[in-house]
Amino acid sequence: MADTRVESDPTRIMVAVNQSTIKGYPNASISSKRAFEWTLEKIIRTNTTAFKLLFLHVQIPDQDGFDDVDSIYASPEDFKGLRRRDKARGVHLLEYFVGRCHEIGVSCEAWIKKGDPNQVICHEVIRVQPDFLVMGCRGLGPFQKVFVGTVSEFCQKHVECPVIVIKRKPNEMPQDPVDD
Amino acid sequence: MADTRVESDPTRIMVAVNQSTIKGYPNASISSKRAFEWTLEKIIRTNTTAFKLLFLHVQIPDQDGFDDVDSIYASPEDFKGLRRRDKARGVHLLEYFVGRCHEIGVSCEAWIKKGDPNQVICHEVIRVQPDFLVMGCRGLGPFQKVFVGTVSEFCQKHVECPVIVIKRKPNEMPQDPVDD
Repeated sequence: MADTRVESDPTRIMVAVNQSTIKGYPNASISSKRAFEWTLEKIIRTNTTAFKLLFLHVQIPDQDGFDDVDSIYASPEDFKGLRRRDKARGVHLLEYFVGRCHEIGVSCEAWIKKGDPNQVICHEVIRVQPDFLVMGCRGLGPFQKVFVGTVSEFCQKHVECPVIVIKRKPNEMPQDPVDD
Repeated sequence: MADTRVESDPTRIMVAVNQSTIKGYPNASISSKRAFEWTLEKIIRTNTTAFKLLFLHVQIPDQDGFDDVDSIYASPEDFKGLRRRDKARGVHLLEYFVGRCHEIGVSCEAWIKKGDPNQVICHEVIRVQPDFLVMGCRGLGPFQKVFVGTVSEFCQKHVECPVIVIKRKPNEMPQDPVDD
């Protein structure tokens, strides 16, 4: 078999990241940070020029408006403002990861998509063709999973590239494991 | 968060490997070779001293003896001979992977265990504590999976470390996808 390890093409790792359910935007979830730091520590290590990180943040459209109880929608312009604010929050979330990459010297790209995370991640993997996908996960038990579902389990089954799922460290677990 | 990327501790990657169902021992399965080559190409790259590969080969005890139709068992010694031959075949399988690592300059260890692959892999992960586990898989459809089961799916759910499953390339697929 030909030895295909060349320096020129970096390994392209997609990292799916989301916001903290405890602290909200612009804070990244414990799981996302852990997946990212794990990738740096265990895969990229000091070989920073051999990898490229592709950060995807999926925003779930806010259908019930609970996040915006202080907002009054009187005109179509108000909704446009809401969408802009949502986007800005996502951008601030991504800033954390892009900033860290810049510090370390790892090349990266980051972008936001709206929709159902399961569907969007599958679609983006087909479009972007990363070498593999890294995702965090809360490491919930079967009882908790029934209620919250897990995007990582769906992606492991359906995404068209290898997937590696990184659980939170036990010492990073919040009081309620559903929080992240 | 502290930057824990140090050169001293290599990332320890366990790779579960098995023999080819088409060519038999000592040939490695298409899936195992693919998982191994993928790890070299996409993860280790040229950073050969930063990783250590741990090859685990699980031998399923041959309960029906179909592999040994030419054998006659007349004494307990004959069974000992059989066990020695089984072991020797496993050793030859591992020789392929250890040889490749030696060529490339990646540090490695390899060993054989007997038993049910699902249980043994889970147990060895607890014992050896690798940073993650790489496994090949045949990429079977749901219909074929019903009949052959997949160790990779079991391990993704139950193993106590991150798992990355690498499918065979489409051009490496044998005529019958159950073959490997």
